[in-house]
Amino acid sequence: MLLTGTGRLAPIGLSPWAIQVRDGRIAWIGAPDEAPPDADRQSLGDALVTPGLVDSHTHPAFAGDRSDEAAARLEGAPSTEGGILRTVRATRAADDETLAALIAGRLRAALAAGTTTVECKSGYGLSLAEEVRHLRLIRSVAEGLPLRVVTTFLGAHAIPPGTDLPTYAAHVADDMIPAVAAEGLADFVDVFADAGFFDLGTTERIANAAADAGLGLRLHAEQLRRTGATELGIRLGAASVDHLEQLDDEGVAALAASTTVATLLPAPAIVLRDRLPPARALLDAGATVALASDANAGTYAGFGTMPLILGLGATLLGMTVTEALTAATAGGAMALRLPDIGRLQVGARADLVAWDADHEGAFALRLGAVHPIRTWVAGTQIAMETPL
Amino acid sequence: MLLTGTGRLAPIGLSPWAIQVRDGRIAWIGAPDEAPPDADRQSLGDALVTPGLVDSHTHPAFAGDRSDEAAARLEGAPSTEGGILRTVRATRAADDETLAALIAGRLRAALAAGTTTVECKSGYGLSLAEEVRHLRLIRSVAEGLPLRVVTTFLGAHAIPPGTDLPTYAAHVADDMIPAVAAEGLADFVDVFADAGFFDLGTTERIANAAADAGLGLRLHAEQLRRTGATELGIRLGAASVDHLEQLDDEGVAALAASTTVATLLPAPAIVLRDRLPPARALLDAGATVALASDANAGTYAGFGTMPLILGLGATLLGMTVTEALTAATAGGAMALRLPDIGRLQVGARADLVAWDADHEGAFALRLGAVHPIRTWVAGTQIAMETPL
Repeated sequence: MLLTGTGRLAPIGLSPWAIQVRDGRIAWIGAPDEAPPDADRQSLGDALVTPGLVDSHTHPAFAGDRSDEAAARLEGAPSTEGGILRTVRATRAADDETLAALIAGRLRAALAAGTTTVECKSGYGLSLAEEVRHLRLIRSVAEGLPLRVVTTFLGAHAIPPGTDLPTYAAHVADDMIPAVAAEGLADFVDVFADAGFFDLGTTERIANAAADAGLGLRLHAEQLRRTGATELGIRLGAASVDHLEQLDDEGVAALAASTTVATLLPAPAIVLRDRLPPARALLDAGATVALASDANAGTYAGFGTMPLILGLGATLLGMTVTEALTAATAGGAMALRLPDIGRLQVGARADLVAWDADHEGAFALRLGAVHPIRTWVAGTQIAMETPL
Repeated sequence: MLLTGTGRLAPIGLSPWAIQVRDGRIAWIGAPDEAPPDADRQSLGDALVTPGLVDSHTHPAFAGDRSDEAAARLEGAPSTEGGILRTVRATRAADDETLAALIAGRLRAALAAGTTTVECKSGYGLSLAEEVRHLRLIRSVAEGLPLRVVTTFLGAHAIPPGTDLPTYAAHVADDMIPAVAAEGLADFVDVFADAGFFDLGTTERIANAAADAGLGLRLHAEQLRRTGATELGIRLGAASVDHLEQLDDEGVAALAASTTVATLLPAPAIVLRDRLPPARALLDAGATVALASDANAGTYAGFGTMPLILGLGATLLGMTVTEALTAATAGGAMALRLPDIGRLQVGARADLVAWDADHEGAFALRLGAVHPIRTWVAGTQIAMETPL
């Protein structure tokens, strides 16, 4: 298949352009008049074409709704740490069919909005049986959908009632991680390494169990307080540290000198009226930056909103549009340690989106009101569905 | 017709609730078990129901795309005042059928996202013939759609090439406004009363022509610089002054003591990385506040995004969700001097939206990723269309 267009191929900025796809991968990129012969030649007119978006941080496995809590918080009600546990109760009470339908709806919304790879965390189960159930449901839903799903075990999301930090952390490290790894249910382990949740010592204990089980590491870091979780993540080889609202210059420099990706999540920072993460400082220092949605039950429940996240990156976070688009594609791919996606280069997986726009600036100018008109995953055009 | 629900009726917060609709208006509101008998009784389950949203500031009559300019601006390129004129050239070159289709697509997107009343400005024609053509096209498109359209003549949007401020302003006041009024093409006159565009003296001259022609007044004010356009608008009886990014405490106090609505437009402020308007100060002082999209060609091109605008009001602008929802309904109605919409009260027009949410906090928690499931305009349920 040879795709051609007279519009923008972004973020590389080629126009006019041609891409040859063979066996699901990009086989050639260049000017249309230099393209190799191909019997299946399709023109995309002047539509903007980009790599499929990569959402490297989501929490889709939950039931219940906490919109009332969000409204109360914005009226000045104290933020309740019990929020996650409210979702845990609702999610435990949801049967497999209900929970699978909720996950599927969220992943379909993501795909309909141009996301072709999505990371999905567990973390609203907080027991061995429930965490395993949620990861199985994510895997099972993913099998029926064309987008690529990466799963992360986030048993260390909060401390469930009736236990304490050391006891629960030992259970996560000694029982849950080996069980999840034995069944091949997760690619990564994540820890909510922040003030009032998992301290650095406990986080390291859980991270070591992940390494022993052969799983990758990613951390929730520096959202509530500057704790040093960033430097811990770097030292332990975390693929990514996520949030970073409270990061300081020292942390920025540490990330710039590392291979750990700085994953920024502007949406929950806005919903919580928190400070925004230091995107400009990270980019200027040379860190690898990803933009992700953090779609979750309590602090930002917008699934299928990566175009908006990209637009917020290019405006509120002070990134250029090219930087934001790169962060929402190649940056997310680096954060997931998937070097074969998120890039327009020979050998990359042909995950491509043609948009109802003619320039990538539309992601900023429309603050996310940009919609896919055609989407390919591994070179196969997928049927678009209405996400509702 | 009697609509009933077990969810939230917002912003009034009644639950469970019933609304009786007769002759397109709300005839009764109260608890379901006290409702009058009605043969046509429909349950909305636990869906959130609100008044239809009111978008009181949009510029939908344009052709062309300035996404490239937005991207360049975010990379540090100087903001070009020629931007509006670029859109003027593209819009003049668009034939009636093309321009009508563009307007219709934008209004359909608004309706699909829960907006049942929308203000539409001209202002990308900047000649008598073109401004009249654009207003006629807006009116003609509006006749074919179920939402209510209010039209505003914004000939004083910029100064076209080949003329100067005094000459063009005299043309607007002496020729264009009388012609627009004679044909009944506009409900309001608007002026871009800001630094480098229309100064206060010129604005007053145009406003007087509007008053002589029997048209209402609204102003673009205090976006680029604190000019005093707010106080001028109040003195001239403007229905609304819009933007207000640069407003100071004195201007806040003046608005609070007036019947002029303060219309806030968070989206272009974000896209331009400008300061945000003083929403909290205005509300605390007692001003009437509206939230609108300002969807336009150059600084924010998101049509059909009022749920996002509402969410940005409730987060970035420091409003509560109830304040933001009120501003996006009753506030917009006040800004358009339409007291019969935007409110859940007996006698109001039955413009209602049932959402895929169970609490109004979803507008904040999902940053706008909230979608209508059923919409009524003047008591008639409308067929939902995909906006693309």
